[in-house]
Amino acid sequence: MTAFPQVDAYRGGAGLIRVIGHRGARGVMPENTLEGFRFTFDIGVDVLEFDVVMSSDGVPVITHNHALLPSAVRDGQGAWLQREDIKVADLTLKELRDLDVGGLDSRSDYGRRFPDQAFLSGAVMPTLAELCALVQEPQYAHVSLLLELKTDLSDPDIDALRSAQVAAVVDVVRAHGLTERTALHSFDWALLDECRRQAPEMPTSYLSEAPRGEGASCQPDGVTKAGSLPEVVAKAGGQMWCPWFEDVTPELLDEARALSLPVVVWTVNEVDDIVAMIEAGVDGIVTDYPGRVQRLLLERGLGWSARVSTPPVAV
Amino acid sequence: MTAFPQVDAYRGGAGLIRVIGHRGARGVMPENTLEGFRFTFDIGVDVLEFDVVMSSDGVPVITHNHALLPSAVRDGQGAWLQREDIKVADLTLKELRDLDVGGLDSRSDYGRRFPDQAFLSGAVMPTLAELCALVQEPQYAHVSLLLELKTDLSDPDIDALRSAQVAAVVDVVRAHGLTERTALHSFDWALLDECRRQAPEMPTSYLSEAPRGEGASCQPDGVTKAGSLPEVVAKAGGQMWCPWFEDVTPELLDEARALSLPVVVWTVNEVDDIVAMIEAGVDGIVTDYPGRVQRLLLERGLGWSARVSTPPVAV
Repeated sequence: MTAFPQVDAYRGGAGLIRVIGHRGARGVMPENTLEGFRFTFDIGVDVLEFDVVMSSDGVPVITHNHALLPSAVRDGQGAWLQREDIKVADLTLKELRDLDVGGLDSRSDYGRRFPDQAFLSGAVMPTLAELCALVQEPQYAHVSLLLELKTDLSDPDIDALRSAQVAAVVDVVRAHGLTERTALHSFDWALLDECRRQAPEMPTSYLSEAPRGEGASCQPDGVTKAGSLPEVVAKAGGQMWCPWFEDVTPELLDEARALSLPVVVWTVNEVDDIVAMIEAGVDGIVTDYPGRVQRLLLERGLGWSARVSTPPVAV
Repeated sequence: MTAFPQVDAYRGGAGLIRVIGHRGARGVMPENTLEGFRFTFDIGVDVLEFDVVMSSDGVPVITHNHALLPSAVRDGQGAWLQREDIKVADLTLKELRDLDVGGLDSRSDYGRRFPDQAFLSGAVMPTLAELCALVQEPQYAHVSLLLELKTDLSDPDIDALRSAQVAAVVDVVRAHGLTERTALHSFDWALLDECRRQAPEMPTSYLSEAPRGEGASCQPDGVTKAGSLPEVVAKAGGQMWCPWFEDVTPELLDEARALSLPVVVWTVNEVDDIVAMIEAGVDGIVTDYPGRVQRLLLERGLGWSARVSTPPVAV
């Protein structure tokens, strides 16, 4: 088995549970923006989770959805988008850069989910290359990237798309000398196979979500039928398992530990849920509120980084 | 009457209510730190409220209380302070700079009030000169300073202290060429007299809090007996009135408006209270959660800065 030192950034341990900033720190700063990423690093978070989609001219850009979210994007005139069907893959980088992604429409459902998120003006959709340049700054030399590749499974040409996306992403990461600080992360497990083929030097991280409620399907579709998730991930060649936090059980955690797979749960924002994950002993917590998780860890005498000394807690 | 252009930064208007970051953005970042100040400016807040106390060697430093707050200060070994009676005025700048003021003890009452505040390591108590240097950076050229002078009224030598503190503070502000961007702000109204004597080029801002509940006294003591607060402030020579937000009434707002005094309320953090202040039509809102206030303003088609274009709101 190849050793992947990149995975150490996600492994918990004595007194340590990792904090991973979700799209930066979405509760506080606009998601998937350089401004939000810098904030996340500056508050001492060592690992960043973010999403990569391709522009029509083949540039890996950082944004969550295939379609632009109208309540999170303003046009060149400063007005919220009116249509929900504008695909990132149909726009050139130049067209994408005309959009302002620095704020949420407070009146939208999505906006109401993050009522404390700051509202910026003039924040543009970053390229992957820009984020790589940011983490090359010496003060961010300790930062690890949990790079989620988003694929549009509805596209008939999905295999070619996967191959092209992985090639473009790996090119950028290699060009910036960041393969030793990057893990490739996806719900699209076939894409992670492609990642291993093209970039065997980077670990792969497997996202999953068990079916929940009537009519729900698991993500990726059908995987839970093939065995317990940690086993399936390990057999597939993955180095990390990232389940929806409610899917974690003590048995699965034990299995993952036996397989040497860190368990990193997403996306944990409410105090009770964060506390439950701390008590369960996961390796890492992906959150929109890293400050909140930091504080709940410290309250229990725990830390999130070997770089940060944890003040003693009065017993 | 002298015109004070500095006061324009606090005046509301058509579609505009000012957002003033309280000690930076205490809900999100450690209070009264350069890290928190930079965050506040970077999210588009134009006015910073902060507190100045004197070190034993006569340096104006930025911290809220005369005594160091044990749950917000760690010693050189990274442990929370154990004593509540350590006065800033008894420590030299060098001694103060050995302390870490970048986090709250989650288990303390004060820590519990700000559960989302990020936890930094190695943040030191800033000097006023450092903040002045920060706002001299070109990207912060629009930032205004609401500089609160804290005096220890229990000191028998209070008159000499006031005079020395005002002299030191004014020296620093003048040396950085920031008198046109600074308002001097205090609960100690006698100190504001001294400010006007020593620095007639800067406006004075009057903090007040009416007595609330049994046995409470108003701050400053006894002022409400001398007439309505806006009148008293205007007669004293003040350019701004900063009441506790629950003290505001439509009548007092009208009076202040007739006297051309902006009304800036503190410290408004809960959604219902923020909405009440927006509906009351105050000029400015001092808050620990500037992102939250930004979003509540935008939801109503309002903005907080002439520099930020407000996206249209669907009716």
